[in-house]
Amino acid sequence: MAGGTSETPGLPNDAGLPKGGGLPKGGGLPNGGGLLNGAGVSPGVGAGPIRSVAGAVPEPPADAKPAGDPEAERATALAALAAVAEDLEARGAKAAEVGNTDGQDVLNAQALMARDPGLADGVTAKVNDGVAAARAVFDAFGVYREMLAGAGEYLAARVTDLDDIRDRTIARLLGLPMPGVPESDEPFVLVARDLAPADTAVLDPAQVVAFVTEEGGPTSHTAILARTMGVPAVVACPGATGLADGTLVLVDGAAGTVRIDPSEDEIAKAESAADARAALLEDATGPGATKDGHKVPLLANIGGPKDLEAALEHGAEGVGLYRTEFLFLDRSTPPTDAEQEDAYRKVLEAFPDGRVVVRTLDAGADKPLAFLPPPGEEPNPALGERGLRMMRHHPDFMSAQLGALARAASGLPAKLEVMAPMVTDADEAAYFAAACREAGIDYPGVMIEVPAAALRAQDIAAEVEFFSIGTNDLTQYTCAADRQIGGLAALQDPWQPAVLDLVALSASAAGEAGKSCGVCGEAAGDPVLACVLVGLGVTSLSMSAPSLALVRAALARHTLDECRQAAEAARSARTAEAARAAVRPHLPALPDLGL
Amino acid sequence: MAGGTSETPGLPNDAGLPKGGGLPKGGGLPNGGGLLNGAGVSPGVGAGPIRSVAGAVPEPPADAKPAGDPEAERATALAALAAVAEDLEARGAKAAEVGNTDGQDVLNAQALMARDPGLADGVTAKVNDGVAAARAVFDAFGVYREMLAGAGEYLAARVTDLDDIRDRTIARLLGLPMPGVPESDEPFVLVARDLAPADTAVLDPAQVVAFVTEEGGPTSHTAILARTMGVPAVVACPGATGLADGTLVLVDGAAGTVRIDPSEDEIAKAESAADARAALLEDATGPGATKDGHKVPLLANIGGPKDLEAALEHGAEGVGLYRTEFLFLDRSTPPTDAEQEDAYRKVLEAFPDGRVVVRTLDAGADKPLAFLPPPGEEPNPALGERGLRMMRHHPDFMSAQLGALARAASGLPAKLEVMAPMVTDADEAAYFAAACREAGIDYPGVMIEVPAAALRAQDIAAEVEFFSIGTNDLTQYTCAADRQIGGLAALQDPWQPAVLDLVALSASAAGEAGKSCGVCGEAAGDPVLACVLVGLGVTSLSMSAPSLALVRAALARHTLDECRQAAEAARSARTAEAARAAVRPHLPALPDLGL
Repeated sequence: MAGGTSETPGLPNDAGLPKGGGLPKGGGLPNGGGLLNGAGVSPGVGAGPIRSVAGAVPEPPADAKPAGDPEAERATALAALAAVAEDLEARGAKAAEVGNTDGQDVLNAQALMARDPGLADGVTAKVNDGVAAARAVFDAFGVYREMLAGAGEYLAARVTDLDDIRDRTIARLLGLPMPGVPESDEPFVLVARDLAPADTAVLDPAQVVAFVTEEGGPTSHTAILARTMGVPAVVACPGATGLADGTLVLVDGAAGTVRIDPSEDEIAKAESAADARAALLEDATGPGATKDGHKVPLLANIGGPKDLEAALEHGAEGVGLYRTEFLFLDRSTPPTDAEQEDAYRKVLEAFPDGRVVVRTLDAGADKPLAFLPPPGEEPNPALGERGLRMMRHHPDFMSAQLGALARAASGLPAKLEVMAPMVTDADEAAYFAAACREAGIDYPGVMIEVPAAALRAQDIAAEVEFFSIGTNDLTQYTCAADRQIGGLAALQDPWQPAVLDLVALSASAAGEAGKSCGVCGEAAGDPVLACVLVGLGVTSLSMSAPSLALVRAALARHTLDECRQAAEAARSARTAEAARAAVRPHLPALPDLGL
Repeated sequence: MAGGTSETPGLPNDAGLPKGGGLPKGGGLPNGGGLLNGAGVSPGVGAGPIRSVAGAVPEPPADAKPAGDPEAERATALAALAAVAEDLEARGAKAAEVGNTDGQDVLNAQALMARDPGLADGVTAKVNDGVAAARAVFDAFGVYREMLAGAGEYLAARVTDLDDIRDRTIARLLGLPMPGVPESDEPFVLVARDLAPADTAVLDPAQVVAFVTEEGGPTSHTAILARTMGVPAVVACPGATGLADGTLVLVDGAAGTVRIDPSEDEIAKAESAADARAALLEDATGPGATKDGHKVPLLANIGGPKDLEAALEHGAEGVGLYRTEFLFLDRSTPPTDAEQEDAYRKVLEAFPDGRVVVRTLDAGADKPLAFLPPPGEEPNPALGERGLRMMRHHPDFMSAQLGALARAASGLPAKLEVMAPMVTDADEAAYFAAACREAGIDYPGVMIEVPAAALRAQDIAAEVEFFSIGTNDLTQYTCAADRQIGGLAALQDPWQPAVLDLVALSASAAGEAGKSCGVCGEAAGDPVLACVLVGLGVTSLSMSAPSLALVRAALARHTLDECRQAAEAARSARTAEAARAAVRPHLPALPDLGL
């Protein structure tokens, strides 16, 4: 019963992605049939018992009696703190092993706080006053907490980080379930308010049948992780955290539904439909193209050589987004030229007949590097010195990366394309293109993720050889809605007609200049939106490897003209929801794919 | 010699705003003639000696000998901490008096940290170990500091807040100059790296001849404050903080230059040119219109009834942006209906023949209200639950404000227009318009400050009666460049052609629907850009009152057709700098105004 279809995208039982996948602006509470509605952000179905990310740890009573003498109580409390620090570090190391160095940074920072000597002194003082260990921990944290909380707008937001360490320590002292992602020996549906990288850093993919979160949007960490893992996911699903642990649910990540206590029959039906679609997708092989033969190369987004296997297995024709951050994060010195060259060559060698699009280092205040500190405090890191803006402060650093790329490609048949993140205007594009050409790279390009760049794509197209649209950031900036905030999910939707307008502007400016224009944001992996993007003039699509088969199948069943009509219909719509609905009549084969 | 022309905008000595006012991407170091170049953001000239915001307080040596016995040393240290707290609170109260409640919040939060009992305990412990008072303070702060700094990406950024309190205490103990804005008995040119609201909260406008900052952009706090005060200002001026205190400088806030050790003759020439322009501006009265009589109402941006006097004095034809936040900040309960009604009626009564455009409460994580907490932590408050997004969580709250507005306008002749901030799509516009009409408000509108709203202005125009373009935020989002970061000044420029494209889209969508489209961002107060905005189809301009005269004069000297040609030339440019240059041939009367 448990297990679902976490390996291959599954087929939704009745509703389709465009209908159910719409982001509800409210509602979603359990209805008569025991059904929760949310936004389906990773297709497939999965059934299993719920495991929730554990809830709040209660405040230890102020008058709790110590179990032993002060010395024993103190030892117990300090041992718990040390154990929490060790656990956090161990989780960090485990996270790093699976490539999640961001997660490790967060966990190590928390461990450091748990080991703070001032904190230990506070605990000791309290225990000496006759306070029980758990309460002493609570009170000692209280001193720091008050300082932070009292500082209002400045520091209050960081109180949650302290609280997490405090709660872990108290849970350990009181024998309560540890907050965070549960451990389980059987496959389960993971339910949470929202998931942060730290929560999922140590998740065992084989155990997770589906994700359901109360908050989060289509570009939230949960959504991206689920698509990368090929696990069905429903986000922005009100009522999800109200379900009791162990409740059996059937999650449909295409329809965006969570059925409570489904019948054997419902599960069997959903699973057999999923199997049917999986079989159908197995037949979808070869290069990406529309029904009438218009070629649309289908590429993979990768974070390093470790992702090559999945990309090749799913038939990627190349790499459309090679994120190079993995080489730079979690170390105190920059990688050597040889290390860089090696990591780049491995990827170029994997696609002798294809292309590899590399994004230069996208560092900034939200992803700080020890050896490239951000120039100052940034109240809004997403609007700060990120990407190329940061690299312009460190031209030697950028030259080193470009040089390593050029040497890696030398003598290999793959086409190397190199692009800069966070390009805003034609001057910046010209600056980057000149740096690439000087390094011996013939195909410089830019990410189109800042609205200004899309609006002035014509000016930028004159400077570079290609565009790659990052729909996640482009949507975030166009709608001024942070990708990290679940409550703004409706505004983070790449179906927003304003975003489609900017994609159209970029693609047509590239086309007129005879340049290519791909999409490498999450939108490219949505099989329906992929058809619309092609209709808007996009020339290649790059996505998480597990999304490739369904996108390939959706494109192969529609002509370029149908895609264009769908694109026109979407742009004529007034809202994202209306755009989703408007394309259906123009893409008649979607139901064959369970879409 | 000191004094300059802080009351009326002055005339630059040689260079014009478009040339010198361009935002340099680098350079700006002192050249042969003793001239620093920056971005002129508030016109006028001013000469005077420099006073710098004081630099770093040195670390007290670890082996410093205590001056007295531990008890005396302890009393000295704690008294200094208490004095710093009192000083911060007093500065907060002073800030609140001049309406700067944001500033008060910041200062009170810092005072609270200075009074932290844990900190006092730490100081006592150190002094008891034989450490001198200043060093004991340094070490006691070190415990908190380490905790924050060690937590890396999370808390490190807040270390500066702690350091400020520490440095103030140590400066007091060691008799060093207090960090922050200097006190002075004679007028001076204030030089700083950048100014925060807390720095300027207690500034005496009569003492400041000009502002010069090393960082900051055209929409930085410094720039806005300078324009509001009518004081010349140059920002993004490399080398400024390297000048010694007392150095005489001549600041030209139109040309963006800082002349070091000017001759008597240079000062006299600049001042007489400024006087000439001031006389010229005195003749510019009456309603705003182009040379050929195309009417462009010139309105004032106000923050409450206290700003009415300046608006009327400078001949505002009404209010184009009434920020209502002042009613809600710095209090623990919302204002009563009667309080609101009263504050709104006062403004409506001041313009019996004009219009008053009120912006509903623009609260959010960056301006938190005690009684309307943000829904959660926001990593990028500028992209969070701000403005209408926040109000949709509190519909009763919004109805109360709309009801008070409708009652305030009832029976008065002024035309009341009410607009929502942070509107993204047509659905949100329709929601707000319905709420206004239900409250009895006939002219609902929206701010156009999110790129998506400008892109889909046609859809939104069908829902509301008017637009008001907020160029500051629109530029920030379109270029994905935080207004608060000086290093990104070149991208925060409303002359960016991409921003002009969005203004044109909004104005033409409004025009086609027979609706009005004003601009209420800082761009409206730039006399050259004002002509371009009118040429783009903008129907009214709202600005800080001191900017009205020069904008009125610039418009009166050019025909609508000239404005349109200038607009076309600006949009044909490839960069903001090129756009500034491209409009000159089409606006021939600018030199008459010293522009």
